Amino acid sequence: MTCSQLYDSTKNHNLMSEINFNNLLHAAMSANPTPIRWGIIGTGKIAQSFAECFQWVPQAQLCAVASRQEAQAQAFAAKYHIPAAFDNYQALAQSDDIDAVYIAAEHTQHYPATLLCLANKKAVLCEKPLAINALQVEKMIALAQNQQVYLMEALWTRFLPNFQKLQQLIADDAIGKIRHIQADFGFQALADPQSRLFNPALGGGALLDVGIYPLFLSLQLLGKPLRISAQALLTDQGVDAQTAITLEYAAQLATLTASIVCNQSIEANIYGEKGKIKLHFPFHTPLAKIELFKNWKTSQVIEVETVGNGYNYELQAATDDLLAGKVQNDLFSWQDSLQLMQVMDAVRQQIDLQYPPSVENM
Amino acid sequence: MTCSQLYDSTKNHNLMSEINFNNLLHAAMSANPTPIRWGIIGTGKIAQSFAECFQWVPQAQLCAVASRQEAQAQAFAAKYHIPAAFDNYQALAQSDDIDAVYIAAEHTQHYPATLLCLANKKAVLCEKPLAINALQVEKMIALAQNQQVYLMEALWTRFLPNFQKLQQLIADDAIGKIRHIQADFGFQALADPQSRLFNPALGGGALLDVGIYPLFLSLQLLGKPLRISAQALLTDQGVDAQTAITLEYAAQLATLTASIVCNQSIEANIYGEKGKIKLHFPFHTPLAKIELFKNWKTSQVIEVETVGNGYNYELQAATDDLLAGKVQNDLFSWQDSLQLMQVMDAVRQQIDLQYPPSVENM
Repeated sequence: MTCSQLYDSTKNHNLMSEINFNNLLHAAMSANPTPIRWGIIGTGKIAQSFAECFQWVPQAQLCAVASRQEAQAQAFAAKYHIPAAFDNYQALAQSDDIDAVYIAAEHTQHYPATLLCLANKKAVLCEKPLAINALQVEKMIALAQNQQVYLMEALWTRFLPNFQKLQQLIADDAIGKIRHIQADFGFQALADPQSRLFNPALGGGALLDVGIYPLFLSLQLLGKPLRISAQALLTDQGVDAQTAITLEYAAQLATLTASIVCNQSIEANIYGEKGKIKLHFPFHTPLAKIELFKNWKTSQVIEVETVGNGYNYELQAATDDLLAGKVQNDLFSWQDSLQLMQVMDAVRQQIDLQYPPSVENM
Repeated sequence: MTCSQLYDSTKNHNLMSEINFNNLLHAAMSANPTPIRWGIIGTGKIAQSFAECFQWVPQAQLCAVASRQEAQAQAFAAKYHIPAAFDNYQALAQSDDIDAVYIAAEHTQHYPATLLCLANKKAVLCEKPLAINALQVEKMIALAQNQQVYLMEALWTRFLPNFQKLQQLIADDAIGKIRHIQADFGFQALADPQSRLFNPALGGGALLDVGIYPLFLSLQLLGKPLRISAQALLTDQGVDAQTAITLEYAAQLATLTASIVCNQSIEANIYGEKGKIKLHFPFHTPLAKIELFKNWKTSQVIEVETVGNGYNYELQAATDDLLAGKVQNDLFSWQDSLQLMQVMDAVRQQIDLQYPPSVENM
């Protein structure tokens, strides 16, 4: 059975509400008779959410999965009815049955796995952070450019309807000129020094894992900061347990925090001259309620319609781009990813967050 | 009529509920037959709140007021039934009819007015910020020490029952070891460049006016920071419109903001290993509700009984100290004020907040 046949036979039975699915699929298929065939690298929690989101993107087919643990690849393939399971990334990258790869392995694999896929002319949608440092990102972009192959950082927030609505509200002058962005993302991880989050050899720490979201928000709304300052508490292993970042702009400040040892809020407040917008917990997800405080006093929840589990929006965007023959996305470009990583590099330098040479490798 | 006579005849008629007042007063008077006679320098909003708070402190009498605008001194004296009104600070400082002075003039007057009072052997309770810089504070303390005269910064929050309760909860391990303090104090002042808040010649800006409260909270709970970093946006006049401060401790961070152009929150969150305490808006006042999140999940509002308008607690503390013959307060000592101002000096240096030489004078 080919990927397309299996896809047709299983997709609507297992992974989505059948209501309207066939209509949607047929409409999409007739417009684009050749859907994009995707593979997934990694089998963790986010890989699973991503596998589930295919049900909302008719032009995308999930055709392969790869894990260095063969049993996990097999189990993942069985669970999501994926025709091909590989026990190494290279086999997936070289497969003729896929067009694009979603990379959801640990942070330290983003760089080598992306290079591997791009070298094999596979489009890449790679989880955030796109890499460990900006030089890695530059090399990834250079290879995508040279190969003329698609590359995008899977910063799902950028594609969510509530985030688009936020940008529209600001553009529509709902709160006047922005004066201050305050965004926090902290949670108390299990204090397991062996876990990925606390392990420098796996690119651990708060900044790359969750600090990226407050930074993303600020960069998206205010652009490149004029000055960056950061402070952190490092663990005994040397990763950042808690980080505070202030970005200075010409007429704005952004105060951002991240933590993996402390259940701070996961909220964002955008203060303007004549009101504020609050993105409720968890601010980076499709669940984030947008509350608009006009003239500071009256508040109003802005309703935004969302379908799917949220990952479908980035999958849809990448799939649409591929169908249109693009190599990067308009809403979250190579330059956006590079700038985000350059800011994280600057933060890391200030907080003395160093990873082993093997992790920083270029 | 002496101050004591007028006080007895008017206090209970005009300024407080008569219930229990006579009992309270008589009890206090029999324990301390000579109450402390207070004067007030300044007639603004805080001076008025302070005048009102005498009704809750039977051992304290309000006997004089001074303003450089004679009409304002007279109106203030009439409103609060104060026997003496002076059109200059010196006359009040030299009056034989008062023991102690509350200084509520603009920031730039705190230093000279305090020196004037101390030189005349009058005890001083001086509004925050105690002065413009730490060298001024050192000179004020040195004079109080030499004269053996009482001096205290009127940081009312320190004496409020909810603040005491907060400290007790932390001491009782309600949230475990503190990991992060986040406190914000921002409001949108009328954009009047002539107003005190925006005028460098009057010690304007967010830091000295409201940033002092988040700093105070952090210093009280965590002590002297190991490192201070600050960023700000300055107005065209050169005062700080918005300031972000990060304090680094051995195992904690404090992230603090202040603004006079932006209605941020006026809340504080104290994050611990096993929960958090939220001080609700407005966190520095007796109205601040204490909410305890045990194990992050269940929340509980801690009830705290408060009487008066809040200023009565600092008046009570200073009055008690004076009756006990002390020269400084145990809960908010000279060292506490000096440390707070030293941190503000460090912040100012980093954000390049400079006042005219006449304001920085020593």
